[in-house]
Amino acid sequence: MTKKNAGSLSVIGLGPGGDSQRTEEASEALERAQVLFGYAPYLERVPSREGQQRCASDNRQELDRARAALEQALAGKHVGIVSGGDPGVFGMAAAVCEAIESGPGEWRSVPVTTFPGVTAMLALAARVGAPLGHDFCAISLSDNLKPWEAIESRLRAVVSAGFVIAIYNPISRHRPWQLGRAAEILKEYLPTTTPVAIGRAVGRIEETVRIVELEGFKPEEADMSTCIIVGSPVTRIITRGELLPLVYTPRSMPTLKTSST
Amino acid sequence: MTKKNAGSLSVIGLGPGGDSQRTEEASEALERAQVLFGYAPYLERVPSREGQQRCASDNRQELDRARAALEQALAGKHVGIVSGGDPGVFGMAAAVCEAIESGPGEWRSVPVTTFPGVTAMLALAARVGAPLGHDFCAISLSDNLKPWEAIESRLRAVVSAGFVIAIYNPISRHRPWQLGRAAEILKEYLPTTTPVAIGRAVGRIEETVRIVELEGFKPEEADMSTCIIVGSPVTRIITRGELLPLVYTPRSMPTLKTSST
Repeated sequence: MTKKNAGSLSVIGLGPGGDSQRTEEASEALERAQVLFGYAPYLERVPSREGQQRCASDNRQELDRARAALEQALAGKHVGIVSGGDPGVFGMAAAVCEAIESGPGEWRSVPVTTFPGVTAMLALAARVGAPLGHDFCAISLSDNLKPWEAIESRLRAVVSAGFVIAIYNPISRHRPWQLGRAAEILKEYLPTTTPVAIGRAVGRIEETVRIVELEGFKPEEADMSTCIIVGSPVTRIITRGELLPLVYTPRSMPTLKTSST
Repeated sequence: MTKKNAGSLSVIGLGPGGDSQRTEEASEALERAQVLFGYAPYLERVPSREGQQRCASDNRQELDRARAALEQALAGKHVGIVSGGDPGVFGMAAAVCEAIESGPGEWRSVPVTTFPGVTAMLALAARVGAPLGHDFCAISLSDNLKPWEAIESRLRAVVSAGFVIAIYNPISRHRPWQLGRAAEILKEYLPTTTPVAIGRAVGRIEETVRIVELEGFKPEEADMSTCIIVGSPVTRIITRGELLPLVYTPRSMPTLKTSST
């Protein structure tokens, strides 16, 4: 187990938006990196530092980006890969693991540290109240890497079981109909009044947050920067006059203990 | 809608551990608060500031704590309630909403801001690789506020559907058998080799993280400060010689598109 150089790879969660929504350790890791890899719009969010090299790449190039980063780390550089939100939730951390597993054996000797961040659903939930206050799931609607049939059956499983559902990657230019289809499926199971929170670019200047009822939900409101939280049958809305309403899922469920089952 | 005083309530996510795993905006909110409410061990993690009043309370007093905080905010104070990890995930944000909904009408006029944080499952996932790299759910095993039957049926629903499962509140002195029963249920569906990550006090000095296979999982390893991530049938372990193995769930699923279904 020879380590030629003391390179390293940091997988860094930028959080949902501005610098103030990052953890301190993530900001320090950004500062330390000699080379930073990332999807271009994410790299643009990072304060620039003299002497730090930046390698921006396209949205769909996760595996190539991870490989290039591992090569530089193996060559002795302190390398950072940035990820919006949390790298572990539909982000770069899994791509780095895939690259390591499928790459040359020496890549396994690269020290990898992941710095977690506030993922989109937590940022959106904080804006609207506490919709994730009880059991919930996170599901990506992208069928680029999994069959649509699997997404449908997963949606049916969790909506039947009463989970709140956070939807990531709801829609894109190449995936125009999937969100509408998902909404149709959810409507089969949920009351028409179920609260839905739609957050676009939460934490950034262009943030928009809307609360609607499932019946009035329009897929065309979403884009690639949108996260959607669909309540469970017990999720509630509190109206507050001039203030925005609060959406929350109670911590307790109606008890079944009086039944004999 | 008369606002007698300009009080406010901030619900503040402390993140998993030390100061460096908090967001900057959460640290600023802690600093601003004139009165801080919270479960005593969480309050102890917050740097003290002269002139800031602190009200520590017991673990199970969430609703009373929320009510006391709302009263102080209505009286014109800038009040903070702290929550470990993220307040929106089995934390104080839902308790605050419940208090507002069931309380006097004037509580609805209190400005409430939630500062999200890195929740336990994200911190644990970052330590071990990327187990939450694909669809996952978060479920509390506490049957204090919901019937155990509902927990069992939810576990069956998500494990059948291929979700990775993050378990919160796995065990306590008053709930000694539930985690063992949950493990039995999961073993009915998952391969014995399914990776399980067990993280205790992740991010704090007393942190311990272990990776085991489902077959060798022992409920007695967990306590109230533990979060557990149970992989899906496609979650993998990468061995790395001297370095800790990586646990990750690939972003892609085997395609079913060649089948005729």
